[in-house]
Amino acid sequence: MPETTSVRDLEGFWAVIPAGGAGTRLWPLSRASSPKFLHDLTGTGRSLLQDTCDRLAPLVGGNLFVVTGARHADAVRSQLPGLAPEDLVAEPSPRDSMPAIGLAAALLERRDPEAVIGSFAADHVIGEPEAFRGCVREAVAVARTGYLVTIGIEPAYPATGFGYIHVGDGLTVRGAPHARQVSSFVEKPDAETAREYLETGEYRWNAGMFVVKASVLLELLARYQPDLAQGLRDIASDPARLDELWPSLTKIAIDHAVAEPAAAQGRVAVVPGTFSWDDVGDFASLAALLADTDDVPGLKVLGDRDLVIAQDSTGVVAPRSGRTVVTLGLDDVVVVDTPDALLVTTRERAQDVKSVVDILHRSGRTDLT
Amino acid sequence: MPETTSVRDLEGFWAVIPAGGAGTRLWPLSRASSPKFLHDLTGTGRSLLQDTCDRLAPLVGGNLFVVTGARHADAVRSQLPGLAPEDLVAEPSPRDSMPAIGLAAALLERRDPEAVIGSFAADHVIGEPEAFRGCVREAVAVARTGYLVTIGIEPAYPATGFGYIHVGDGLTVRGAPHARQVSSFVEKPDAETAREYLETGEYRWNAGMFVVKASVLLELLARYQPDLAQGLRDIASDPARLDELWPSLTKIAIDHAVAEPAAAQGRVAVVPGTFSWDDVGDFASLAALLADTDDVPGLKVLGDRDLVIAQDSTGVVAPRSGRTVVTLGLDDVVVVDTPDALLVTTRERAQDVKSVVDILHRSGRTDLT
Repeated sequence: MPETTSVRDLEGFWAVIPAGGAGTRLWPLSRASSPKFLHDLTGTGRSLLQDTCDRLAPLVGGNLFVVTGARHADAVRSQLPGLAPEDLVAEPSPRDSMPAIGLAAALLERRDPEAVIGSFAADHVIGEPEAFRGCVREAVAVARTGYLVTIGIEPAYPATGFGYIHVGDGLTVRGAPHARQVSSFVEKPDAETAREYLETGEYRWNAGMFVVKASVLLELLARYQPDLAQGLRDIASDPARLDELWPSLTKIAIDHAVAEPAAAQGRVAVVPGTFSWDDVGDFASLAALLADTDDVPGLKVLGDRDLVIAQDSTGVVAPRSGRTVVTLGLDDVVVVDTPDALLVTTRERAQDVKSVVDILHRSGRTDLT
Repeated sequence: MPETTSVRDLEGFWAVIPAGGAGTRLWPLSRASSPKFLHDLTGTGRSLLQDTCDRLAPLVGGNLFVVTGARHADAVRSQLPGLAPEDLVAEPSPRDSMPAIGLAAALLERRDPEAVIGSFAADHVIGEPEAFRGCVREAVAVARTGYLVTIGIEPAYPATGFGYIHVGDGLTVRGAPHARQVSSFVEKPDAETAREYLETGEYRWNAGMFVVKASVLLELLARYQPDLAQGLRDIASDPARLDELWPSLTKIAIDHAVAEPAAAQGRVAVVPGTFSWDDVGDFASLAALLADTDDVPGLKVLGDRDLVIAQDSTGVVAPRSGRTVVTLGLDDVVVVDTPDALLVTTRERAQDVKSVVDILHRSGRTDLT
């Protein structure tokens, strides 16, 4: 059972959950109409969004704030029945992460000028929640001193699909023994560069987790993107203007809007993450998170085990339509069975599933995307 | 349009269609509850059973006689609305081909003592129907002289999945210039033996087609399997005793019961078949019968082309549930999508689909078989 205590141990700390992104490479499980954060992709019985909230509850109690697309607001409310109506913002349209997190900051700053916010994507998977919470506690301690703080994941392999954080000198902050300065954020590297990063030991994966005082975030934003900061504060002072002002906000990621320029000015810190983390970007990544079935080595089933018969087969099978799925003589196969669409591919081609969704779009089959 | 003329050009000739066999290696398309002869497996819009009857109609007019399992009798009547009630026998249980064909012979002999019957399986595919009919005409001419006549298919490759006919000397029969004596029937060979057979030029595939006077078949049967012959004649003289007598009949194939011993006594002739023939035994064999789609070389679709998106993929896709099927990055894949079961395998493993059905049986999932 997840911990759902209402006692929070970090006074004035709010978890902000941007719940967006279609998870295109997880089609047909994940769709624009039903994105991956709404799904149980790990067999826990809880969606990724619910898992994210469960993981944060011991730190924040009821201090949860969710920003999601208007079309998903009802689904989010239904999955998080304890969420107060004022703690959910429904974006009229997607404007990337900075407007989403910035609006949460502007709204929370009005409630508590000393509020610290931590933004955590709704669709990531974390292996050791207690270790995660330990890192967040350190990050909050550092954020209270005025830093924008990120959590940098220890790279498990030379990934080319993530950005990296170049770590600098240690910081001296009470309650945050592991905190370091951030030298810079670097873009997704090629394979060779990724290997070099790992050899130095000075690089961490950028998992897009940011912990910062709401007022500091808005101050930094006002410096780098003044129009955007003003727009967000205008909405916060009169939420009835959301639909009117939202479309004019700059569409930009928090990394580019604030984190990168702030790092260049020595305003960003990092707490090294000592927990396993994955953004569940595609079926290969999902497969790595699932345990093998008891009886068939190399076979992962996302759903009812009894619906799958695998003969001389390995890979991932998601039987999500209630039908029996039989695989015979295929290694590293990916079979995703849903009521209106079926995907058959391989782990190796998992990243290319996006191209299928593009084809469906081009051929007008948006009912399936 | 198939020829459906009621004018037959072979007086006193009856086509007997044993419509049986589950087509297990074509699961989940073909099931014991809905065997392959009831399905359109070639995209013609007609089932294999209907194709078989269409192919024979120009020869026999309305002289069609079908023997099928009791559970399939309604489906057969529905697919062949022109079939007279007395021209359909519903077997109470499967007893292999000799009782099925023998009962048809016994019933037809009572209607016409000079009747010639030709038995042709309901679930085979023939490429050139006019060439086929030419062979049947020769076979009927030979059968009228008292031979049991088979049609021997020119081997297209050294198949190990079929029995062979060892061809002997030529015969001199008016109207049958290509007829030969049969030296013997031989069992399915190994690959090396099959190659040797092809090199000699003296071997033909045994497609299980037999043309013979009903009275001759019963005379031969009375010699080799007297109890069976008597049982069949008892049923023919009093069809009300079918249910009572049927279970006591010897379960045996016509090849073993009659064709092999008769060949040893010089009573069997063969007309060489000059048409393409396939028993559609598995999905590899089915794939070979289907044309490539216009736009994706190597892709065969059995069903609605618009339901299939194949990216960097070849093989066979049968979209039979109305859902969209996407294959990505798989060569020679077999995907068979039905409303209650999905099969994903490869052409190479097509023969092993039977093992899946065995597993379903053992695990009590007979609803799917």
